[in-house]
Amino acid sequence: MKVIVLAGGEGKRMWPIQTDKCLIPFLGKPLLYHNLKSLKDNIEAKEFIIIVSPQVKEQAGKIAEDLDLNFQIAVQSNPTGMADAILSAKDLIEGEILVVNAEDILEPKAYQLSGEGDVRVVGFKVDKYFPGGYLKVTGDRVQAVVEKPGEGNEPSDMIKLVVDYFKNGKQLIEYLQKASTDKDDSYEVALDLMIKDRVEVTFTKYEGVWLPLKYPWHILDITAYFLSKLKQQIPPQAKVSEKATIEGNVVIEEGVKVFEGAVIKGPCYIGKNCIVGNNSMIRQSNLEEGCVTGFNCDITRSYIGANSWFHTNYIGDSVLEGDFGMGSGTVLANLRLDNHTIRVGDEKIDTGRDKLGAVAGKGSRVGVNVSTMPGVRIGSGSLVGPGVVLHEDVKDNIKITVKQEYKVSEYTTSLTSYNQFKVKINH
Amino acid sequence: MKVIVLAGGEGKRMWPIQTDKCLIPFLGKPLLYHNLKSLKDNIEAKEFIIIVSPQVKEQAGKIAEDLDLNFQIAVQSNPTGMADAILSAKDLIEGEILVVNAEDILEPKAYQLSGEGDVRVVGFKVDKYFPGGYLKVTGDRVQAVVEKPGEGNEPSDMIKLVVDYFKNGKQLIEYLQKASTDKDDSYEVALDLMIKDRVEVTFTKYEGVWLPLKYPWHILDITAYFLSKLKQQIPPQAKVSEKATIEGNVVIEEGVKVFEGAVIKGPCYIGKNCIVGNNSMIRQSNLEEGCVTGFNCDITRSYIGANSWFHTNYIGDSVLEGDFGMGSGTVLANLRLDNHTIRVGDEKIDTGRDKLGAVAGKGSRVGVNVSTMPGVRIGSGSLVGPGVVLHEDVKDNIKITVKQEYKVSEYTTSLTSYNQFKVKINH
Amino acid sequence: MKVIVLAGGEGKRMWPIQTDKCLIPFLGKPLLYHNLKSLKDNIEAKEFIIIVSPQVKEQAGKIAEDLDLNFQIAVQSNPTGMADAILSAKDLIEGEILVVNAEDILEPKAYQLSGEGDVRVVGFKVDKYFPGGYLKVTGDRVQAVVEKPGEGNEPSDMIKLVVDYFKNGKQLIEYLQKASTDKDDSYEVALDLMIKDRVEVTFTKYEGVWLPLKYPWHILDITAYFLSKLKQQIPPQAKVSEKATIEGNVVIEEGVKVFEGAVIKGPCYIGKNCIVGNNSMIRQSNLEEGCVTGFNCDITRSYIGANSWFHTNYIGDSVLEGDFGMGSGTVLANLRLDNHTIRVGDEKIDTGRDKLGAVAGKGSRVGVNVSTMPGVRIGSGSLVGPGVVLHEDVKDNIKITVKQEYKVSEYTTSLTSYNQFKVKINH
Repeated sequence: MKVIVLAGGEGKRMWPIQTDKCLIPFLGKPLLYHNLKSLKDNIEAKEFIIIVSPQVKEQAGKIAEDLDLNFQIAVQSNPTGMADAILSAKDLIEGEILVVNAEDILEPKAYQLSGEGDVRVVGFKVDKYFPGGYLKVTGDRVQAVVEKPGEGNEPSDMIKLVVDYFKNGKQLIEYLQKASTDKDDSYEVALDLMIKDRVEVTFTKYEGVWLPLKYPWHILDITAYFLSKLKQQIPPQAKVSEKATIEGNVVIEEGVKVFEGAVIKGPCYIGKNCIVGNNSMIRQSNLEEGCVTGFNCDITRSYIGANSWFHTNYIGDSVLEGDFGMGSGTVLANLRLDNHTIRVGDEKIDTGRDKLGAVAGKGSRVGVNVSTMPGVRIGSGSLVGPGVVLHEDVKDNIKITVKQEYKVSEYTTSLTSYNQFKVKINH
Repeated sequence: MKVIVLAGGEGKRMWPIQTDKCLIPFLGKPLLYHNLKSLKDNIEAKEFIIIVSPQVKEQAGKIAEDLDLNFQIAVQSNPTGMADAILSAKDLIEGEILVVNAEDILEPKAYQLSGEGDVRVVGFKVDKYFPGGYLKVTGDRVQAVVEKPGEGNEPSDMIKLVVDYFKNGKQLIEYLQKASTDKDDSYEVALDLMIKDRVEVTFTKYEGVWLPLKYPWHILDITAYFLSKLKQQIPPQAKVSEKATIEGNVVIEEGVKVFEGAVIKGPCYIGKNCIVGNNSMIRQSNLEEGCVTGFNCDITRSYIGANSWFHTNYIGDSVLEGDFGMGSGTVLANLRLDNHTIRVGDEKIDTGRDKLGAVAGKGSRVGVNVSTMPGVRIGSGSLVGPGVVLHEDVKDNIKITVKQEYKVSEYTTSLTSYNQFKVKINH
Repeated sequence: MKVIVLAGGEGKRMWPIQTDKCLIPFLGKPLLYHNLKSLKDNIEAKEFIIIVSPQVKEQAGKIAEDLDLNFQIAVQSNPTGMADAILSAKDLIEGEILVVNAEDILEPKAYQLSGEGDVRVVGFKVDKYFPGGYLKVTGDRVQAVVEKPGEGNEPSDMIKLVVDYFKNGKQLIEYLQKASTDKDDSYEVALDLMIKDRVEVTFTKYEGVWLPLKYPWHILDITAYFLSKLKQQIPPQAKVSEKATIEGNVVIEEGVKVFEGAVIKGPCYIGKNCIVGNNSMIRQSNLEEGCVTGFNCDITRSYIGANSWFHTNYIGDSVLEGDFGMGSGTVLANLRLDNHTIRVGDEKIDTGRDKLGAVAGKGSRVGVNVSTMPGVRIGSGSLVGPGVVLHEDVKDNIKITVKQEYKVSEYTTSLTSYNQFKVKINH
């Protein structure tokens, strides 16, 4: 069996995160690494065909080599959906195939398809409407695949995950070519055509973790998932002060220093060469390599990309892509004082989360004593000046500073001696 | 002897504190509990008559039951002063009575009246003018009671506390009925009438603690008084980190957790189920039950009502009624940079205090990185938004947020590449 | 040999630092003390002639007495340069003299002049243009002294330090009297005249530390120099909590208290009676006597004058002259987010430093949650109000506060019930 790994998904909704979804690192390794490893460890497969966007080709190859996979890379030039992705690899596809998505998180048991169909898919019960492909079923037989039916029109409460087995890979290619490919649902259309042509499609119901990665705050769910798998591991070379506290399932990589009074409460991942400064507290977070928390930071339930530095900050439920810097006293607020769920952007996308801090793209900088409101997004390379109370998103490569108006007066020893005058200064 | 306990005082000057003065809890018990207990322990009394406002009736009864008192409750419907209060209970009054105020703090020795008069009162020497009833005396005989004579017109430096013994309670009732009751000084007028009618009124000079509760900052004085009585008491079940420090007369109630690096320096009271977060420091403060200090708070000489939560804050000399929340980085400033005493409100009430932080009513919320100026009052249910520098009181149920004006420019790598433009954004 | 110590230099460029340069204390002693001690310990001198401005006379005398020097004080009434300074002491000068500057830092070996000339000077190789006197040399003979030639016109890369030996002090006086003294380069002109008159002037090249004190941020370099000489010294009487950490070459004076969780990492000097509050961290800094860090301060590479107090602050690479106060949450930012070197004032003086915090004159005050930008100067006796983001210098005796505009609305339980109205409040 060949495993077709879809790793070229678009990330339009991932702004301000620039990194290709499959390359976002968790626990020091890209998401693609984790997913390929899970597939390798849990599926008997002869070969992997990894379909990626051009810019990811080289790194994907290295990841597959690291895992000692038998693999081929196919490049999808213009990402226009799953059908287009698979057709990019059509010359490599034959015999039995399993199509999987490298950007979702699934537990290994999701790959254990039972059923007898020539096509076998995996269904997942949803509690509320999800904009994906729904399965219309009778027993274990799939009667139809309905892509994004709209809320209230669902044929069932079962959506199709992307773990699709085809006894005859060539047949899938033929159907994909038949289906119009100018929309992003061609794959589901092809599948539906196969059913109409009486190809036997069966499904297995999967009950376990499924974490899609559509919006940047989904990174927090995936972080929590990976952290939940950790066992405590502190290398003897790590320099951990005797006055620091490390508790629970904390993984510390080499070169890490943890200073006096610091507290790390697991699950946590502290990447290579990170410095956890005096009196800092880190809980339930993933710090990629080279981060410096400085003095007295509180980092909770957050994802911190490589080479980020902090100094006396509160970072709660936040996603910082990396190369990020933050001045002393800055707070990424993560809770609305009215306790509403956090909505993001002009579109007010409801994240469904009670707590969400900021999402910041790579290379962004935030000055001292800044306050960012729950759910704001800060674009890559942007700079938020000192003292800003940030209520709205900041696009990429923007500098935003606050203009303060001052009252300036002579000042000697008592309030009665003021000789007041007013000056307006802009910055 | 019957003790007439006046517990229905108005709290007009207590805004933004809503809780009836006699029900404000200290060390986990309402003020009325403490005062009734002191009376029970220090006076030989057959019966207590507790005069309260209607909304307090039930709770006052429970408190008296807890103390296993022989008591009756009288309800004063419209609080219009002491005379009105006592007349509310006129049918219960006969024989010897002692009239006391349940909202002042006095040491037990204040109740040990000597003297031979049919009426015996307690005098207290004041250093400067106090708007109360002054005693004109000869030896231990009271010649007159002068209510609020105005500064400079005091007949002596001795004011009358409310610890008044009457050999004949019925006689007091008669005089109260004679005195006009349309003003709040009818009680003093009645007393003065008795003197004029040659009833023998003697007085005892009391030298000890007397703490009236008129303004909310008086809660700080009363807190300090109760704290001064504590002895260290840490239940074995309390979860106190070995890396935490507890020093001096600290009382910790059950269910409390104290995390690494936290410091509690007595005298302090930490109520049931409170959480003292990592690196937080609490000194000379009273925290009622269910408070959470979060990470790295500094709470000093403050009164914190139940179920308040904090996160990286400085709270100095402040009164927070309860159900209060504060965002990270917020500071309740407690000291004027010009070292003047703190004055409060539009009326500039001089508190006489060098240090006073904020006073916040029940259920108020303060966002991140807020700065409140010394002596500001925040009304119940109000919300102070992030970044506000609060110089003035906020009424009940108000939301106040700061409007910032921004400068927004493109930002690439160097200052010379700015393409500047201005945008005004209001929030 | 007599040593002529020039200690009356003007400090125009030192604003907002008021203290005479030679009286600025390091490690608890004035700069003049350190330099006189180094001269005493490293030069065989019969007598010291200390030339000072009138206001320093008394203190300079005490310092010399403390050091048990054989000395005389000369007063320079109007500081108009070195020539004028030396002429102030002309009646005291005879025989061999060594002229040194008491405001520069030099290592002892700088005083070991070799050479055979009747006049012997010390040269120092500079990497880039320095506005001082340049030496034109052949072998060890000085051919000319060129004062401030301007960049590109330097006769060599060797500037003359102020360590000048004259076999005949009287001769120097004569030449100084000949040279026009209405400019501040008369001393160099006189020296050049001597060369033209065939007086033999030789020079020694000095390779070592040379730290001039022209601008206030030079205090940071001098602080680092003095700190580098420390060895750990903690008096047994100092009250250092067992939960505090002291590491490296830290000198603690008597009366100091260090509280739980505090960290002092050497080299550091903690002056008499300083209090290092809970969880505060001090690194590579000099704190003169009587400072209080309060709770949770981070003080790094800074110079802190006597009797300054802090509370939850970040103070990086800053110079605070003393009697300084700072409110909780205030940050002296020390790093530009664009990583440029720090420029100071309207003139944009390039300090050449990547990191520079604030420079504050004596008696200044900064409120809570203030953010000062890298390199701002705050004048003596000035007050920066809460919440200010300070981008510009504040002159002496000025109060600057921020005017915020607010949005005030009724607030009950949900966002939909707002009855919004706008109020503008100025402070």
